[in-house]
Amino acid sequence: MDYKILSEIKIPEDVKSLDFDQLDALAEEVRHKLIDTVSRNGGHLASNLGAVELTVAMHRVFDSPKDQIVFDVGHQCYTHKLLTGRYDRFDTLRTKGGISGFCRPNESEHDIFYSGHSGVSVSAGLGLAMANTLKHSDHYVVSVIGDGSFTGGMVYEALNNGGRSKAKLIIVLNDNKMSISENVGALAKYLAVIRSKPEYYSFKAHTESALNRFPGGDKLASTLFKLKTELKNKLYSSSTFFEDLGFRYMGPIDGHNIAHLCDAFEAAKTVNGPVLLHVITVKGKGYDYAEKNPSVYHGISKFDIDTGEAISNSVSFSDMFGECLCEHAAFDESICAVTAAMGLGTGLKHFSELFPRRFFDVGIAEEHAVTFASGLARNGMKPIYAVYSTFLQRCYDQIVHDVSLQKQKLIFAIDRAGFVGEDGETHHGLFDVAFLGTVPDIKIYSPCCFRSLKADLNTALYSDEYAVAVRYPRGGQKDNVAKLRYHVIEYARYGDEEAETLFVTYGRLTSEAIDAVDELAEKGIPAQLLSLNQIKPLSQEITDIILPRKNVLFFEEGQRSGGIAERLGCRLLEAGFSGRYIITAVEDRFVEQAGVQDLLTSYGLDKSSMVKKVTEICDDRKNKT
Amino acid sequence: MDYKILSEIKIPEDVKSLDFDQLDALAEEVRHKLIDTVSRNGGHLASNLGAVELTVAMHRVFDSPKDQIVFDVGHQCYTHKLLTGRYDRFDTLRTKGGISGFCRPNESEHDIFYSGHSGVSVSAGLGLAMANTLKHSDHYVVSVIGDGSFTGGMVYEALNNGGRSKAKLIIVLNDNKMSISENVGALAKYLAVIRSKPEYYSFKAHTESALNRFPGGDKLASTLFKLKTELKNKLYSSSTFFEDLGFRYMGPIDGHNIAHLCDAFEAAKTVNGPVLLHVITVKGKGYDYAEKNPSVYHGISKFDIDTGEAISNSVSFSDMFGECLCEHAAFDESICAVTAAMGLGTGLKHFSELFPRRFFDVGIAEEHAVTFASGLARNGMKPIYAVYSTFLQRCYDQIVHDVSLQKQKLIFAIDRAGFVGEDGETHHGLFDVAFLGTVPDIKIYSPCCFRSLKADLNTALYSDEYAVAVRYPRGGQKDNVAKLRYHVIEYARYGDEEAETLFVTYGRLTSEAIDAVDELAEKGIPAQLLSLNQIKPLSQEITDIILPRKNVLFFEEGQRSGGIAERLGCRLLEAGFSGRYIITAVEDRFVEQAGVQDLLTSYGLDKSSMVKKVTEICDDRKNKT
Repeated sequence: MDYKILSEIKIPEDVKSLDFDQLDALAEEVRHKLIDTVSRNGGHLASNLGAVELTVAMHRVFDSPKDQIVFDVGHQCYTHKLLTGRYDRFDTLRTKGGISGFCRPNESEHDIFYSGHSGVSVSAGLGLAMANTLKHSDHYVVSVIGDGSFTGGMVYEALNNGGRSKAKLIIVLNDNKMSISENVGALAKYLAVIRSKPEYYSFKAHTESALNRFPGGDKLASTLFKLKTELKNKLYSSSTFFEDLGFRYMGPIDGHNIAHLCDAFEAAKTVNGPVLLHVITVKGKGYDYAEKNPSVYHGISKFDIDTGEAISNSVSFSDMFGECLCEHAAFDESICAVTAAMGLGTGLKHFSELFPRRFFDVGIAEEHAVTFASGLARNGMKPIYAVYSTFLQRCYDQIVHDVSLQKQKLIFAIDRAGFVGEDGETHHGLFDVAFLGTVPDIKIYSPCCFRSLKADLNTALYSDEYAVAVRYPRGGQKDNVAKLRYHVIEYARYGDEEAETLFVTYGRLTSEAIDAVDELAEKGIPAQLLSLNQIKPLSQEITDIILPRKNVLFFEEGQRSGGIAERLGCRLLEAGFSGRYIITAVEDRFVEQAGVQDLLTSYGLDKSSMVKKVTEICDDRKNKT
Repeated sequence: MDYKILSEIKIPEDVKSLDFDQLDALAEEVRHKLIDTVSRNGGHLASNLGAVELTVAMHRVFDSPKDQIVFDVGHQCYTHKLLTGRYDRFDTLRTKGGISGFCRPNESEHDIFYSGHSGVSVSAGLGLAMANTLKHSDHYVVSVIGDGSFTGGMVYEALNNGGRSKAKLIIVLNDNKMSISENVGALAKYLAVIRSKPEYYSFKAHTESALNRFPGGDKLASTLFKLKTELKNKLYSSSTFFEDLGFRYMGPIDGHNIAHLCDAFEAAKTVNGPVLLHVITVKGKGYDYAEKNPSVYHGISKFDIDTGEAISNSVSFSDMFGECLCEHAAFDESICAVTAAMGLGTGLKHFSELFPRRFFDVGIAEEHAVTFASGLARNGMKPIYAVYSTFLQRCYDQIVHDVSLQKQKLIFAIDRAGFVGEDGETHHGLFDVAFLGTVPDIKIYSPCCFRSLKADLNTALYSDEYAVAVRYPRGGQKDNVAKLRYHVIEYARYGDEEAETLFVTYGRLTSEAIDAVDELAEKGIPAQLLSLNQIKPLSQEITDIILPRKNVLFFEEGQRSGGIAERLGCRLLEAGFSGRYIITAVEDRFVEQAGVQDLLTSYGLDKSSMVKKVTEICDDRKNKT
């Protein structure tokens, strides 16, 4: 495809000059570009395919960036990127230095808010709109949010706050009948009821869209639209929940009909107050495989366009976790698995099939998930909450008060700990160690291999008394971890027992450090590795091992501030350690998108950086003597 | 009053043997006991007065602790405490070692879940009920929650999750038309509409309650009740939001009529699935002053029963913050204040009166508050989010992603930092420093006196670039802080510049340390105090000041793990510090209720403990030489 129309769209203004046939052709080109790019770079496909016409229509009616379009999460922002001057660079999607898969204000003035976590767009949108009100600005704020995000509580807080305001906020509820996993819970049922109402536009005379195409017809059409709305509201008098909360409800609208969408947006602009526009879309629209299996194609690695098949991955920590949990659950009826719409990603698919009564997908509701699980625990169950590290940030208070303070035994299976790669700033798991570290009584394991993952889970299930977190990276284990010999659950060692130089690390970096020890040995520099498995609390033995060393180098794939390296450092100072202590970690910043190995190198956490640091110390010492 | 009936209630079972006249008399006695105790000990009054009959009825119908009653927050659990064997000790309410003002499982088997933060009861209740289902238990779970808590998103997450379940969960929505501040937002409006419907029980024949009093009448009455409900649902066909979500809605019910309440609970027990029981109560019921001014009497210090007047407090940090903000806002139209239902407690009353358009009370919705404020900032406003330290725990992810990552300038005015005293475990502000410390780019000030509070706010508003937190304790400043001479915004010093012994601390403890330095000077032991004001980031100058000292004693009114003392310790190790470093802080635990000065002593953070620690070091050294 040669992208005749798309390649000419340099700014959103260019969309406005196209007629509706051209807009349909543009949508076709966009869709082709999305499938092509994601098949090569990986990314969020099904959700983006569903929002093509929706986005084209928004840019036809609104004036970005003066009118501000805020995408929730960002799983549906690719079309927006293509229409706001990023077509030329779109091939770099999700690569180092390239276009982000999410909204990034540092990338374009059309990206209003960094997005990545669910439910943010309505709160942020309300703030933006309220500021406009205070500044007497006439511009609109449009928050685009999927029905999946509507299972999160923050949206509800924002609706409650915004419903009685007069803010010029238009919420576009992009209802594709499922979020990342198939949508769960009562709201899905409720939306299904609304959807089943006679379609809004079936009442709509064709004259209206025709009118739109004449000069001045816009206004006439929206007046007609408003009248119809009033009439219909009288006819179908049962008001929706959204109207009860003070929003003007419009819909449901066919989200793949650009002309209808444009009419609806024009009508929404004339309302004096907040509007909720309910748009029905098909997730995966236009790519058969994705339409049939939208969950699989929600976020996907590189795949073959013709067969739809992803390039197969090797066994991951997620797989191993899921398998291990199934093994235990078969013999232990108290084991329950809880997830916040991440059953697939966290490896719980098999568990959900084998033990459906003990599998709880609570929706994108991380806070509720923790407290709900704590309730399960209080009445005798053994709940395991499987969650990505980045999303666990949502539950800090619940972990402190509803788990730790209650002295409940709850296991956190924290996936995607450390760098995640291409999803970038909002998705790396770099904070969990630091914020969990502040929680009383919680134990944290950070296994470096499958064998220790299993041992940790086993201990967590049957020996540990209170809350336990087991955290592991995206992807699998490296072969060289087989070299480690485990003595105790707290740590393992590798290399020269008598070495003055000691690497301390945990989790994935263990593998890098093993190679570093080997390479240094080849150079004749003795070094040892202390790989921590139980990173909180740190046992006294660990201090004892470290105290006699001259050079201690701590490598941490996480925030330095509040991390294990800092805690250990302070502990060593108190114990009178007099050697050199050097920390390499992520220092008070967010980390960009790039492959994991690239990031390890960039942040000085790969084997070569480790070797280099030690040789520098040696040279330094030589120069001094 | 001699509490004839109340004093005989040793277990909830005792309530069941009373007739309805006796129950009314019991309610009267309870109410008297509440007013009397709170007038002497302080506590939550208005909310508890509203829930007296409600609680009596629950204990008449349900079998606690087999049936589990989960109170949200706990502002309405005093009657529950009086009826579950704690009458004799109730005079110790909120004192050291005494009865807690909140639910505490370590206090009684009838307290199911530690409570303190809003919106937890439905999630926890659902978990408890789901575990019952899995275990084939027939017992009920009752979650009691106020309409104020319903503005928080977690409740909605739980409703969404629970609505399609068959859990034996009964949610009692205690609707007193306001939470801590007058209720805000769209939900309040919605509930008002429901309330305005013809009262449920106006249809109810008196025969029903009469029937209840005959043996076997219970069952008959609830059958009748169910029939009536069906009928009424047909008549008033517009379903409520709760029904849309899958809950059986019952109400509204007069929350001060014990017989009606008992009927309703019996009816709720017969429903096969989750129930929402909507109960209307009067906040402050039975005490004129509290009924007229429920916000003021929500949580209150000791007061005079006859006049209703609280024993006056001196000027607090909250007052000073509010005043200072008003001064700036008069000249700077971009300043906005945001609060999550804590306008009164955070000192924003005056601001809300002077600048109503720029004052946003978003409901008990801490997460939304942050992201909403970030939206305001993105479009040119200067938002200040005033919040208690303990409630800020709810917003960790929003602070990381929606503030820090966005590089938005947002000011957090963190009240109740450190020990808060009588509210106990769930309310101390002991985590904010540690978890905020993990957030990139955020600056944290911890002023020790009003003068530095003002300077910090000024700097935050007009000099600092990104997010800033200014945290200060409950209560006011002590006089001795006038002795400090401020050199820079980062720190102040006091005492002997050449001393080998250095105290390092920040915030309220500064005052204790000044006295300690003075007392040591009298004993002929030279010491100096370094009082940090800017605690993140720590300036290089601070390290330079400390490096030459022999004994450094860091006192921290907060969690040790992830706190400033640990960070500074690690920094000193890296810089080659070779002196003694001793940390006193709260070590990996929750802190009980007691007066602030008592707690400072218990945790070794008062003047005398500081002096003692230094003299011990000196003796230690003498013994060695």
